[in-house]
Amino acid sequence: MTDHFSGDDHRYMAHALQLAEQGLYTTDPNPRVGCVLVRDGVVVGEGAHLKAGEPHAEVHALRMAGEQAVGATAYVTLEPCSHHGRTPPCADALVKAGVARVVAAMQDPNPLVAGQGLARIAAAGITTASGLLEAEARRLNPGFISRMERGRPFVRLKLAASLDGRTAMRSGESQWITGAAARADVQRLRARSSAVVTGVETVLHDNASLTVRAPELGLSPELAEQAASRQPLRVVLDSQLRLPAGSKLLSLPGEILIATALSQDHPRAAALIQPGARMLSLPGTEGRVDLGALLVLLAEEYQCNELLLECGATLAGAALQAGLVDELVLYMATTLLGSSARPLLELPLERMAQQQRLKLTDSRMLGEDLRLTLSCDGEIN
Amino acid sequence: MTDHFSGDDHRYMAHALQLAEQGLYTTDPNPRVGCVLVRDGVVVGEGAHLKAGEPHAEVHALRMAGEQAVGATAYVTLEPCSHHGRTPPCADALVKAGVARVVAAMQDPNPLVAGQGLARIAAAGITTASGLLEAEARRLNPGFISRMERGRPFVRLKLAASLDGRTAMRSGESQWITGAAARADVQRLRARSSAVVTGVETVLHDNASLTVRAPELGLSPELAEQAASRQPLRVVLDSQLRLPAGSKLLSLPGEILIATALSQDHPRAAALIQPGARMLSLPGTEGRVDLGALLVLLAEEYQCNELLLECGATLAGAALQAGLVDELVLYMATTLLGSSARPLLELPLERMAQQQRLKLTDSRMLGEDLRLTLSCDGEIN
Repeated sequence: MTDHFSGDDHRYMAHALQLAEQGLYTTDPNPRVGCVLVRDGVVVGEGAHLKAGEPHAEVHALRMAGEQAVGATAYVTLEPCSHHGRTPPCADALVKAGVARVVAAMQDPNPLVAGQGLARIAAAGITTASGLLEAEARRLNPGFISRMERGRPFVRLKLAASLDGRTAMRSGESQWITGAAARADVQRLRARSSAVVTGVETVLHDNASLTVRAPELGLSPELAEQAASRQPLRVVLDSQLRLPAGSKLLSLPGEILIATALSQDHPRAAALIQPGARMLSLPGTEGRVDLGALLVLLAEEYQCNELLLECGATLAGAALQAGLVDELVLYMATTLLGSSARPLLELPLERMAQQQRLKLTDSRMLGEDLRLTLSCDGEIN
Repeated sequence: MTDHFSGDDHRYMAHALQLAEQGLYTTDPNPRVGCVLVRDGVVVGEGAHLKAGEPHAEVHALRMAGEQAVGATAYVTLEPCSHHGRTPPCADALVKAGVARVVAAMQDPNPLVAGQGLARIAAAGITTASGLLEAEARRLNPGFISRMERGRPFVRLKLAASLDGRTAMRSGESQWITGAAARADVQRLRARSSAVVTGVETVLHDNASLTVRAPELGLSPELAEQAASRQPLRVVLDSQLRLPAGSKLLSLPGEILIATALSQDHPRAAALIQPGARMLSLPGTEGRVDLGALLVLLAEEYQCNELLLECGATLAGAALQAGLVDELVLYMATTLLGSSARPLLELPLERMAQQQRLKLTDSRMLGEDLRLTLSCDGEIN
């Protein structure tokens, strides 16, 4: 489309994007969406989708506007839905309310329904436009968009290392090398994810729980409680079923998936299948779990949008080498651990041509540490 | 001192600091100094020291102010000198010009003369104060201050690596991993340094010249020409005198120092002593050059302020481990070279307690690369 937008249009859509962010930790598996209704230069209604099953952003905004919605312009960060889901179609609600114009930041990312919501509105004689602040709108929902467009989650790999790319001493001696601010940030990454994936080695080594813990999120108490009330699905890659039945992770609230390369009937499986823990056999090559197949399954059966990979050097290296990582979040402690220390990634490359070039999208300090966010556009050759 | 300064005082001193920066590439071995003269709220004179042997900042400012210096306040980024050097004492010039008040950002860093310039001015009945924007003033002249206070240069270690802390593939295959903007920045680091120090391995491997090249500085043509007209002293650490007599580095303009652990009478020395190239025997332990002794000598005999260490993993690791590095400038290419690739530093540490904690003082993008500046406060235990 080649719609032209005014400065006011930009301003109101930016506001709608801010509203959408309110649902960052809670809308899953739905997308984060915001809506602003403006009549005669006055905001008469605004709303955000906050939780699956509860009203969409448009409904909140229309309720607030009441009669003032007549003749208003609706700014929506995502094309209004045209289908009956758990709530009636928002496209119909906007038409019924008598708005004069609907501006969407982006179309529905599901290629099968893209444009249908706006078409439904246009068919009622209402002006429609799309594509305003689209890049910003896409950044709000990388996981939802990935699931709709590619049939797999958006995979975010979290790593922490020293300046010289090391995670622990040769002996295995390690400790938190990043500070409290970085750890709270990791909690927030978990809280916005549909699933957290780790390897059995990480569980064996750290007895990691991988849960979202309200007091550690560094958010307001209300928001933290809301965020922690929804635990991401925890996925353990355990090709040979070495997970001890007494692992802390199995005892905590929230769903668990154990992905193995063995059969689900394997003798060691029985002890692990507990309330809330499901076993999944996804044999890949070399006795490993088929990561690509797992991603497809997580998208299709678990509606996984954003997936956080929190694991050791081996699994991280394998995921990068397989081209399955979309974003790398690297917490860098401003320390040097030296050349005998353990590497960040088991990623044995031999030629410069094999290097994995990334693109820095954000860099900021978290306490004394540095957080780099990098987009993995290309795959390792 | 517990002087109180007004908002105007801060503003004028900030201006003087900006003026001082004009000499960043050219005042060596003198410090960078700026001066602003203000009367009745009007700047009546300003100046910067630009080149050793040429007038000091105060003299430029006084010349500009002329008669208007009478009753003015002088803001100087460094305490006015009280001794006869290549130019007469600036303290006397300020007194003679009839200024009413002198504010210095910092005292003379030479502990033997600190305060004498201001005392000389105060003795003439002029109000004096010191310590305004002192931290900023110290950052302008880390090398000069280090030489005066510690008797050795400020040592800046430049490294370039991938995100996972690697510099080349295991085979030795390498290429520029950072881009043009980062390379221009390294040129500017050279240009502000009194000396560039490297190891013979780097010369053997890259046939490096270590010179400042005007077109590569990324500065205005005038400033670039001025900067490149002064080549830093180039120092090659060559413990066993393996430097080939035909090295490019020996053929280029500028002084060269070859630091060896062998005797200056060694048969291989004769071929290397050429016009502009001096040999220095500084035997340390294990057949290496004594780095600490070299630094003292560079400060005392060569008036070295800032020293840039541009070298490979071995020398960089040794300098860090010896606690001789004051600042690390790390150019980080947003790429992964993998766990078989060569480490950034030969720094074999075994325990977490040995890690070298640094403090990030600046982080910025240079093209696609990231530049981290880190202060090395502590030493490796």
